[in-house]
Amino acid sequence: MTTNEANEPAEESLLDGPRVDDSFHVFDTTLRDGAQREGINLTVADKLTIARHLDEFGVGFIEGGWPGANPRDTEFFARARQEITFHNAQLVAFGATRRAGGKAAEDPQVRALVESGAPVITLVAKSHDRHVELALRTTLDENLEMIRDTVSYLREQGRRVFLDCEHFFDGYKANPEYAKAVVRAASDAGADVVILCDTNGGMLPAQIQAVVATVLADTGARLGIHAQDDTGCAVANTLAAVDAGATHVQCTANGYGERVGNANLFPVVAALELKYGKRVLPQGALAEMTRISHAIAEVVNLAPSTHQPYVGVSAFAHKAGLHASAIKVDPDLYQHIDPGLVGNHIRMLVSDMAGRASIELKGQELGIDLGDDREVVARVVERVKERELRGYTYEAADASFELLLRDEVEGGPRDYFRIESYRAIIETLKDGTHANGATVKFWVGEERIIVSAEGNGPVNALDSALLEGLERFYPQVAKFELVDYKVRTLEGKHGTASTTRVLITTTDGTGEWTTVGAGPNVIEASWEALQDAYTYGLLRAGTQPRR
Amino acid sequence: MTTNEANEPAEESLLDGPRVDDSFHVFDTTLRDGAQREGINLTVADKLTIARHLDEFGVGFIEGGWPGANPRDTEFFARARQEITFHNAQLVAFGATRRAGGKAAEDPQVRALVESGAPVITLVAKSHDRHVELALRTTLDENLEMIRDTVSYLREQGRRVFLDCEHFFDGYKANPEYAKAVVRAASDAGADVVILCDTNGGMLPAQIQAVVATVLADTGARLGIHAQDDTGCAVANTLAAVDAGATHVQCTANGYGERVGNANLFPVVAALELKYGKRVLPQGALAEMTRISHAIAEVVNLAPSTHQPYVGVSAFAHKAGLHASAIKVDPDLYQHIDPGLVGNHIRMLVSDMAGRASIELKGQELGIDLGDDREVVARVVERVKERELRGYTYEAADASFELLLRDEVEGGPRDYFRIESYRAIIETLKDGTHANGATVKFWVGEERIIVSAEGNGPVNALDSALLEGLERFYPQVAKFELVDYKVRTLEGKHGTASTTRVLITTTDGTGEWTTVGAGPNVIEASWEALQDAYTYGLLRAGTQPRR
Repeated sequence: MTTNEANEPAEESLLDGPRVDDSFHVFDTTLRDGAQREGINLTVADKLTIARHLDEFGVGFIEGGWPGANPRDTEFFARARQEITFHNAQLVAFGATRRAGGKAAEDPQVRALVESGAPVITLVAKSHDRHVELALRTTLDENLEMIRDTVSYLREQGRRVFLDCEHFFDGYKANPEYAKAVVRAASDAGADVVILCDTNGGMLPAQIQAVVATVLADTGARLGIHAQDDTGCAVANTLAAVDAGATHVQCTANGYGERVGNANLFPVVAALELKYGKRVLPQGALAEMTRISHAIAEVVNLAPSTHQPYVGVSAFAHKAGLHASAIKVDPDLYQHIDPGLVGNHIRMLVSDMAGRASIELKGQELGIDLGDDREVVARVVERVKERELRGYTYEAADASFELLLRDEVEGGPRDYFRIESYRAIIETLKDGTHANGATVKFWVGEERIIVSAEGNGPVNALDSALLEGLERFYPQVAKFELVDYKVRTLEGKHGTASTTRVLITTTDGTGEWTTVGAGPNVIEASWEALQDAYTYGLLRAGTQPRR
Repeated sequence: MTTNEANEPAEESLLDGPRVDDSFHVFDTTLRDGAQREGINLTVADKLTIARHLDEFGVGFIEGGWPGANPRDTEFFARARQEITFHNAQLVAFGATRRAGGKAAEDPQVRALVESGAPVITLVAKSHDRHVELALRTTLDENLEMIRDTVSYLREQGRRVFLDCEHFFDGYKANPEYAKAVVRAASDAGADVVILCDTNGGMLPAQIQAVVATVLADTGARLGIHAQDDTGCAVANTLAAVDAGATHVQCTANGYGERVGNANLFPVVAALELKYGKRVLPQGALAEMTRISHAIAEVVNLAPSTHQPYVGVSAFAHKAGLHASAIKVDPDLYQHIDPGLVGNHIRMLVSDMAGRASIELKGQELGIDLGDDREVVARVVERVKERELRGYTYEAADASFELLLRDEVEGGPRDYFRIESYRAIIETLKDGTHANGATVKFWVGEERIIVSAEGNGPVNALDSALLEGLERFYPQVAKFELVDYKVRTLEGKHGTASTTRVLITTTDGTGEWTTVGAGPNVIEASWEALQDAYTYGLLRAGTQPRR
């Protein structure tokens, strides 16, 4: 669930920004480089939601995209300035150095970076001599001048500048002097950090460590690392660079990124905090890691990786009977960290998806007092397990979970309405157009209501019918609007014959909530999630059920 | 695809075994430790098939399981001796040192290892003092005696012995002298290799490297490494141990294993061969890696990871139009290795970021000659952009893209069938159950067909109706099965009223293809993707449209 942190305009917040400890940077590029992952296609609303999650997690920098390069990224920066108050992160705009032969001050792409209002700009520059000549088609000297000019100009505009050296490690191998000249040019012109990028992802940790150490010694520049995972070593490469003196790490949530992906933010910060003993996140943030990882996966509509280090549901799952008995004696003998440190938990059985502790914590979080009633908690655990087996998920559907929890604690469901039956028809008409209609029969107290409605699809028609019928009794539903709708089919080997899960996010203009439905088909699952959406919205508004 | 390498009995092949270069061991434990992964449940037939794949890939050792511990593993060893002629690998049985206070020669568990007929035995032993005391409940000295006795006995039986030091790195931290005493006991008693296991998976490469180097210097034993991936560093940890002098690496195919998993065999051997220049596989085997990785995933019934290093379908996929033009100039600038070396290939993702260059490369990839016809390419780019604006995506829907491309190149669509109209109804019945029905009217050549069908959802009902109607004309559609179905709503601020995108993956038993549909509602979009799925499947089969 997302909370709209600020309705007040926050025009100046981006340039003032929150204070972060500047000695070590956790820099997230999920919204820019992560979005290059095959299968990810983010809307502006998705990007805003992910930015809120990342800020809550406590990264120092959120690279939001390339303003000016496409309308979506431009809109993201405009809306982020209005709609988000960042508590931990500074927003970063990504862009390129000016064109060859021009002036930074007159370059429209560079101007768009300034106009984005972002307090920090990451510039990408070529540092591999062949790329300068073949891809950029300019001279090695002009490339250095482009860097100096663009960095200086942005500094004059009051922006902090980081410089990404694209293809740095391959470039260093081909021409180490030129690669270092790029680092010096950026640093001398005022770039705060120069990031060495393993753009093709072919490096191994020992190589990264040696190059970073040499470049640091030879240039004295503050260095960062940007690792891709093509050898399966992006996390280790990032840590190797830190070992060699880098103080800025670029990562993406869940390792999303082009080809194999980028260095995964979560194991990198977990290693820094738990293995290096280095505080890189705000107090308490690490314990939210599992939840935030899964929430971001839901937004990008990819199943969370069950086997992701630290945060996967299998990450602390023990299968071997041998271990299970020994774990009871001393769990620390069989796990490398206490899973609670990263918001995860031990699982001894495959079906054990929700433990008592997490239910109790969730109750606290929602302000529902579960007291010492072990029986209620046990019943909730049982119901969650049973329903998750049938395809529901409560990790992203906080509203449906709260309804389930209140149902057990308060005894019985909220009875705003009772459905009798529904029907939806989709057909093509003679003129080639489509018609979608729905009829819903339901009760409010003692009154029976029959409503028919049309829509541009069966779910929309069902939604319209329910809304129209409820409005007479509960006028506030007029404000409800369905803002996101996601469907996933579970159990790959059956296609449409398998279980379908639907997540619906609804707003009433002041907040958003997400509900879940699951069933053999998309319409039934949607219908279930819709009913929860209306019930939760009414509950949230403090409405009393009509008798 | 599996090949039954040998139907002739090969009773003696296990003890004679093929010759492998013994200076460096690639040791696979997919069938033993990999099988601990949550969700994997292997039959004996599965294990035999995987063993054949691994032998073909050229690993030196295949750890097949724990004979005597369960009937399945006992049967595996018996059948492997009869049914497989190994060309590269030696079969390894896994087991434990004898019980405390007994004799190896009289220990039934140790006897079962000998009776398995495996030429090589891996023994697991405790090397962490607390584990000896708490889990094994014996003395530190007796644990050393158990190791000496069991190793010596198995050597006397003519077997080669490797010894896995469980929890070695945690044990070394707690009591380095005892951990080293375990290594010495095994080595002195005749174990060829002593494997240092990071059983809890909490180590980072620098730690691994330091400990392996010290243990090697202090004991002189031949060392191996067994890394778990709990920090996301198992591949790097394995390579760090090799850097420090380990000459035996234990891995699993696709990184399967308990919790997060084990060191992934494929990136480990690829790094050794391609980055270290070390020959660890038979000539030509590396080029089979992608195929073998996917084949093993099929056997264990897990979808191959699309983002796995080297072998994932996304591992060499390029999205940005910026890159596509440069890739034509020099592909080596944009990839860390030639994908052909590991049996993979470049894929150009077609998206609104794509320009002419990526369309041309995509045409090449599909074997469609676009020649020098700049107009056709321009029309395709235009159509892709226009349709992506309306919600289509061609990045994941290769089949729909190929249909679009052929349409422009060959002039007009494939006319297997023409839809006249369709209707789908979803309703709740009086008894609370649901009914889903669909009616489709369409033409094949001059013939008009009307089919009605039921399904467990409207999309399933439409699919059934179309399949039933087409089967008379095109019998091969009977093999088509919808295996994945994904829905995404675009433009967050409109909810069900916004554009819906559906991706459908279909199989005919020999291959899979993905098609896309987009429209104002989920049924229309699904219906469009279904039509493309049938058309592409028929095209793929080389079927001629009926007139």
